[in-house]
Amino acid sequence: MSMKTLADAFYDELRDVLSAEKQLVKALPKMAKKASCEKLTAALESHLSETEKQVQRVEKAFEDTGKTARAKTCEAMKGLIAEAEDMLKEDAEPAVRDALIIACSQKVEHYEIATYGTLCTWAETLSYDGALKLLKQNIDEEESADKKLSELAKAINKDALTVG
Amino acid sequence: MSMKTLADAFYDELRDVLSAEKQLVKALPKMAKKASCEKLTAALESHLSETEKQVQRVEKAFEDTGKTARAKTCEAMKGLIAEAEDMLKEDAEPAVRDALIIACSQKVEHYEIATYGTLCTWAETLSYDGALKLLKQNIDEEESADKKLSELAKAINKDALTVG
Repeated sequence: MSMKTLADAFYDELRDVLSAEKQLVKALPKMAKKASCEKLTAALESHLSETEKQVQRVEKAFEDTGKTARAKTCEAMKGLIAEAEDMLKEDAEPAVRDALIIACSQKVEHYEIATYGTLCTWAETLSYDGALKLLKQNIDEEESADKKLSELAKAINKDALTVG
Repeated sequence: MSMKTLADAFYDELRDVLSAEKQLVKALPKMAKKASCEKLTAALESHLSETEKQVQRVEKAFEDTGKTARAKTCEAMKGLIAEAEDMLKEDAEPAVRDALIIACSQKVEHYEIATYGTLCTWAETLSYDGALKLLKQNIDEEESADKKLSELAKAINKDALTVG
């Protein structure tokens, strides 16, 4: 694909985030399964439902801008998930593992916040009003998920401190 | 390295961010060289100087907490830089390439914001006051760099729109 115009860049980025979200749909259940704190498991499971809806919104954004939804492997998300999977293999105490799961999840959230931030700015510049509305919903959910994880981290980090 | 305690997790994360920052010191000049907008080149070069100082602060944070500074390859940053390098190979118009450079840089900034966010929270929990002060300086700079890029994007995206 050539990348001559801002519209080309927008589609390329949309393909990247479609891949990122799809990778996350597969990774989140593994992280939820390894979490010990019930509130963390619930937060990850609730974010999985959101992520599934986000995939649909991204697909709708392709449709709204007259393109076919087609993912392009997101190498950054591959790296983030590889790090999370390595971390899950560590012989960590439950509260420490929960703190690590939150750390990995917040890196993922920030990747998505950056990507949707760019996509929203480009959609606005390109007057892609329908796509912009969908992408804004996604970025709002990612920002809420990140804040929720920061809140959960407070109690979990205190628990993790008493270990070892 | 076993990851039994929150202190173990802190050191592992510090090793990750040391690798991330060192990778970025190598990548930023390539991005600055490919940028067309003078303000973008200047912003990337100024962030390179900041990044070099951030490496020193991370090394000082190891020292302050009685550890040897040793990087551990950050796979996520490897992925982010691989994506940026692929993008730089694209046959894009100058303003579009600048918009893409900003997009990649903001992903990098958000990776670092997430990582320093976790490190600051853990340093606070662990009462690593000296390290906390150093890491807070780094996160503040990353957040400023991200905002500066968002500001620059406004004019660059408009220029990019006129292309093609």
